Amino acid sequence: METQHQETDNNPLQDKGRRKFLGTTAAVTLAGAGMAMGLTACKQGDQPSAGSATVAGGDASRAVAAGEFEVHPGKLDSYYIFSSSGHNGEVRVYGLPSGRTLKQIPVFNIDPMVGWGITNESKKIMGTNPDGSLRYTTGDTHHVHGSYTDGTYNSKYLWTNDKLNNRIARIRMDRMECDAITEIPNVQGFHGIFPDKRDPVDASINYTTRVFCGAEFHSPQANDGRDLDDPAKWYGLFTCIDAESMEVRWQAKVDGNMDLVATSYDGKLAAVNQYNVENGAVLADMMSAERDACLFFNIARVEAAIKAGRSFTIGDSKVPVVDGTRQANADPKTALTCYVPVPKNPHGVNLSPDGKYFVCSGKLSPTATVIATELVHKWFAGELNDARDTVVAEPEIGLGPLHTAFDGRGNAYTSLFLDSQIVKWNVENAIAQFNGDKSVQPVVDRLDVHYQPGHTYSSMGETKEADGKFLNSGNKFSKDRFLPVGPLHVETEQLIDISNDRMRLIHDHTAYPEPHDAIIVRADVVKTQQVSNMDDFPNAVKSFGDSRIERNGKKVAVYLTSQAPNFSMEQIRVKLGDEVTITLTNHDRVEDLTHGFGIENYNINFIVNPQETHSVTFKADKPGVFWIYCTHFCHALHLEMRSRFIVEK
Amino acid sequence: METQHQETDNNPLQDKGRRKFLGTTAAVTLAGAGMAMGLTACKQGDQPSAGSATVAGGDASRAVAAGEFEVHPGKLDSYYIFSSSGHNGEVRVYGLPSGRTLKQIPVFNIDPMVGWGITNESKKIMGTNPDGSLRYTTGDTHHVHGSYTDGTYNSKYLWTNDKLNNRIARIRMDRMECDAITEIPNVQGFHGIFPDKRDPVDASINYTTRVFCGAEFHSPQANDGRDLDDPAKWYGLFTCIDAESMEVRWQAKVDGNMDLVATSYDGKLAAVNQYNVENGAVLADMMSAERDACLFFNIARVEAAIKAGRSFTIGDSKVPVVDGTRQANADPKTALTCYVPVPKNPHGVNLSPDGKYFVCSGKLSPTATVIATELVHKWFAGELNDARDTVVAEPEIGLGPLHTAFDGRGNAYTSLFLDSQIVKWNVENAIAQFNGDKSVQPVVDRLDVHYQPGHTYSSMGETKEADGKFLNSGNKFSKDRFLPVGPLHVETEQLIDISNDRMRLIHDHTAYPEPHDAIIVRADVVKTQQVSNMDDFPNAVKSFGDSRIERNGKKVAVYLTSQAPNFSMEQIRVKLGDEVTITLTNHDRVEDLTHGFGIENYNINFIVNPQETHSVTFKADKPGVFWIYCTHFCHALHLEMRSRFIVEK
Repeated sequence: METQHQETDNNPLQDKGRRKFLGTTAAVTLAGAGMAMGLTACKQGDQPSAGSATVAGGDASRAVAAGEFEVHPGKLDSYYIFSSSGHNGEVRVYGLPSGRTLKQIPVFNIDPMVGWGITNESKKIMGTNPDGSLRYTTGDTHHVHGSYTDGTYNSKYLWTNDKLNNRIARIRMDRMECDAITEIPNVQGFHGIFPDKRDPVDASINYTTRVFCGAEFHSPQANDGRDLDDPAKWYGLFTCIDAESMEVRWQAKVDGNMDLVATSYDGKLAAVNQYNVENGAVLADMMSAERDACLFFNIARVEAAIKAGRSFTIGDSKVPVVDGTRQANADPKTALTCYVPVPKNPHGVNLSPDGKYFVCSGKLSPTATVIATELVHKWFAGELNDARDTVVAEPEIGLGPLHTAFDGRGNAYTSLFLDSQIVKWNVENAIAQFNGDKSVQPVVDRLDVHYQPGHTYSSMGETKEADGKFLNSGNKFSKDRFLPVGPLHVETEQLIDISNDRMRLIHDHTAYPEPHDAIIVRADVVKTQQVSNMDDFPNAVKSFGDSRIERNGKKVAVYLTSQAPNFSMEQIRVKLGDEVTITLTNHDRVEDLTHGFGIENYNINFIVNPQETHSVTFKADKPGVFWIYCTHFCHALHLEMRSRFIVEK
Repeated sequence: METQHQETDNNPLQDKGRRKFLGTTAAVTLAGAGMAMGLTACKQGDQPSAGSATVAGGDASRAVAAGEFEVHPGKLDSYYIFSSSGHNGEVRVYGLPSGRTLKQIPVFNIDPMVGWGITNESKKIMGTNPDGSLRYTTGDTHHVHGSYTDGTYNSKYLWTNDKLNNRIARIRMDRMECDAITEIPNVQGFHGIFPDKRDPVDASINYTTRVFCGAEFHSPQANDGRDLDDPAKWYGLFTCIDAESMEVRWQAKVDGNMDLVATSYDGKLAAVNQYNVENGAVLADMMSAERDACLFFNIARVEAAIKAGRSFTIGDSKVPVVDGTRQANADPKTALTCYVPVPKNPHGVNLSPDGKYFVCSGKLSPTATVIATELVHKWFAGELNDARDTVVAEPEIGLGPLHTAFDGRGNAYTSLFLDSQIVKWNVENAIAQFNGDKSVQPVVDRLDVHYQPGHTYSSMGETKEADGKFLNSGNKFSKDRFLPVGPLHVETEQLIDISNDRMRLIHDHTAYPEPHDAIIVRADVVKTQQVSNMDDFPNAVKSFGDSRIERNGKKVAVYLTSQAPNFSMEQIRVKLGDEVTITLTNHDRVEDLTHGFGIENYNINFIVNPQETHSVTFKADKPGVFWIYCTHFCHALHLEMRSRFIVEK
């Protein structure tokens, strides 16, 4: 049992583990990249004193009182985290500050608990082949973002990406269920995603109507076997999705690989950080340029160009595509895109809550680049000579800067992958320093995290309501932080208190590999539907009396209801070879009184929450008696809640 | 943020929520079962004072100090929980006391993160159809138990059941990965599972060699279309699996539905609680008998009978089956089985850590039945008149008793589903009371849990090393305990301190629906392998130089290696229609330096931990260039770790 309650920054054992780790993996990391010298040189110039010096020494200002952030039994968390899950394909919901997993929302994966990928309704959302099998059974979610009204979350939708099979999924926030998936044509490595916050033309539409998608990998266009060996002809596309219809509105051809996306509060700009502006196909080429870019799209101009017919299509796709390459957009006054040069291989772009600054981090440079929204508008108005003139600061903040979060008080928090730290820096200080004021230091605090952080994100930090209370550091390696579980480690998520001058580490929680980005949403913002409305399910079996079996040739339709502890039919009798569709409506009304429907040896299982209807279709390919049982605990006589599936020869 | 730190047993709001709930769902529960009156009557006789009376009143002995059980950042948990996950099909690993999820072990489900159900190696374990597709993609795990040496865990294997498709899976404890799955013939509703602890014949074999499986549902034998409407001819089978080969050793025909399994420390007995001894096919019939049974198997006699040829086979199965029905085992001296009558519809059987008592709970009776191991042996020796004479106590403990755990100090802890409590009772007191001593009360403490507990289990409680520190209550309804997440609620697991006279609620943690049983294992017992040995993978690509593409007609074999941040081939070139097998060995040696292998739009993803090899086989059915990328974060240049899959027309 754990008995030590005080953070000891100078815990020698912990430090030993940490440094030992940094002495192995980090060395491999650097050597593998052939960059050891360059980065070491940067480290020497790091400000203020490098590494963990600022946090060592048993600093009382970092102390967390015993139980200070404990969520007592029966008490609720104060925030939700909505998180990607990586190549597990789902989206996860955590409570903060407890770190408890509240839900796993199946999206691109099959979930036999819910019946996701098994029921007809979920298969329709996921997409099927002509033979009815699922088109895809894998996915790779990296980012989750919510819909906005007036610059903050409206609790309507979440969207997430699939980097593996290039789909965008939408989740209904009220039910926390996926309700739409769209396959994006002609892209590969769809990674970044962000909703807009206002209409770019009609400012009275002050809510999300579009979602923007960045795709990393350039490919032949169309990718039908042409240009296999001519990477110079390949390119990538930036994509705009309609938030309501989930249809693809338009795409833009660009130079370089696109990573993350951010959008302005006025709805006029979408930004995406770019690595490999060289369009290299192999590692050495991807790293050759000293500068990559933060690419801005002038959304109104893009849509005007399409309206004016200045678009083309690719292959079988009907989606209009505009040309957003540098060459086609040389004149700022008519340009659809603005490529702002930033240090090489940036890995994130985030907007400050006041809407004034986009921060694009360096990854292979120890800097963060601060780009003023106002100056990007000026560039598009032809009032600046050079896109680089939109940069108002570029502080040195540490090694391997990736992603930046904000506290709403003027401070930025950037994850430093190589330094294994979160660095807190003041944006106005950085601007003053960039303007020549040598008396200010942008960096105001550093906190060691364990180990090698990827994304970091703050409470309400992607909205105008950033409240500066919590920051989460999603770390890529957990190493010695948890009990060992064999070769595959769990990930570490570290919760940090940012409400004071100095960051304080609250706790480590775990996440099944591997979440990437997430958002932290105040609990009161989220409005959920706890019991369904039977009328929302068009195929509902509305009364027990409607229970029946209908045969049409070899097709058998079974209409069934459930109410604890009974299914409405004691047996379902069909013939070998029949195509059977079972539609089940749960007539229980009590919240949480969910039933499961499993058929022995028939590989069928799904649940029906109260008042819900779901259906499955399958072939009766084995003769005999197969028990149907309730798989989701419902009642004292749950074990006895059964029916029989009888297949006659 | 949570600021209240003291447990307040008499919190009126909490109590209101609780009682309101019990006034709705519980009422539905009882009314649905048509048992309200009977159970209410029992409740009036409950001892000591009923309901929450014993816990109300702001009891200081229940107080948990702020942070008392907090696991500080960087500190490790002291116990593992290995838990079933229900119809999600996986097995989960939690840390205690933190409640953090340390691992999700895919077993019967598809996990696109690991590549479980995608790699050839995992498909071989899961089982495939002739066309190479998975035979099953769903499963329903209820119980997890570990292998024993000398009466305690030896950290070698875990086993879990699949109630849906009737399979048993084994997990290697060192790697925490599933390594074998066996389909059990001629059973349905395979629910209970328990390893033996010693050989029944050769006492020098003091470790697990067999695993026993109880199956709930009786069915036609063989289930090939015969006897569809003649339930009187149906029966269920108890199954013995070889712990090492994972082959089915034998089965036993029994009366009634089998639920959970327990085994004696001497290896001679396996017990299974039975409901529906009536062999009813519908609810009313299943509940008609006043008494069901706790069924004991004399393992040595069963195996001697098989050796002597007193067995038969069913359908295509070659497994020897003995007759364990009542009728065939009327003479105790030769009986293979002993049916001990217990109150109706019991839902659990557990052995005390001293090996002396099996406790079989009543579910529909407010009692727990205590059966003495020694007396069961005496019954089999012909020294008792009646199987019921093996019962040494039957205390009234509360409404809806399900499962019992032990503290190694003579106390039992039983989950009360209807009362939503854990009741602590003293076994020797119960025996004294049963023997007529009216001065003792078996029940010594009660603790409200939230809500409606299913399984409860204690630290090391299923071993001779039961240490009486922690108890977990796995609750079936969470209701108002966590932030709402739509219609589907998360489950509540409540951790309870049992080291003192009075139980203390430590915290609620969450679990994705829906875990059933689990074991709590001391952290020092578990020995894991953290980095694999390349030689353990027979298809390893042992050096970069071995990277190559071999063609044999339309079959293309690709041998690939990974080392951060590179795959060993910049491209893999095949022809449209080829059957491609890619074998990938990860040459990184640093612990946790896992790579993922994903192919864009080809629905392929899997991981390779350090020094591991995995392979996939698929058809190249789309022409074009498809980027391969590392899906599992590995390195600063992870994003740039790519290759290309090129499919020529």
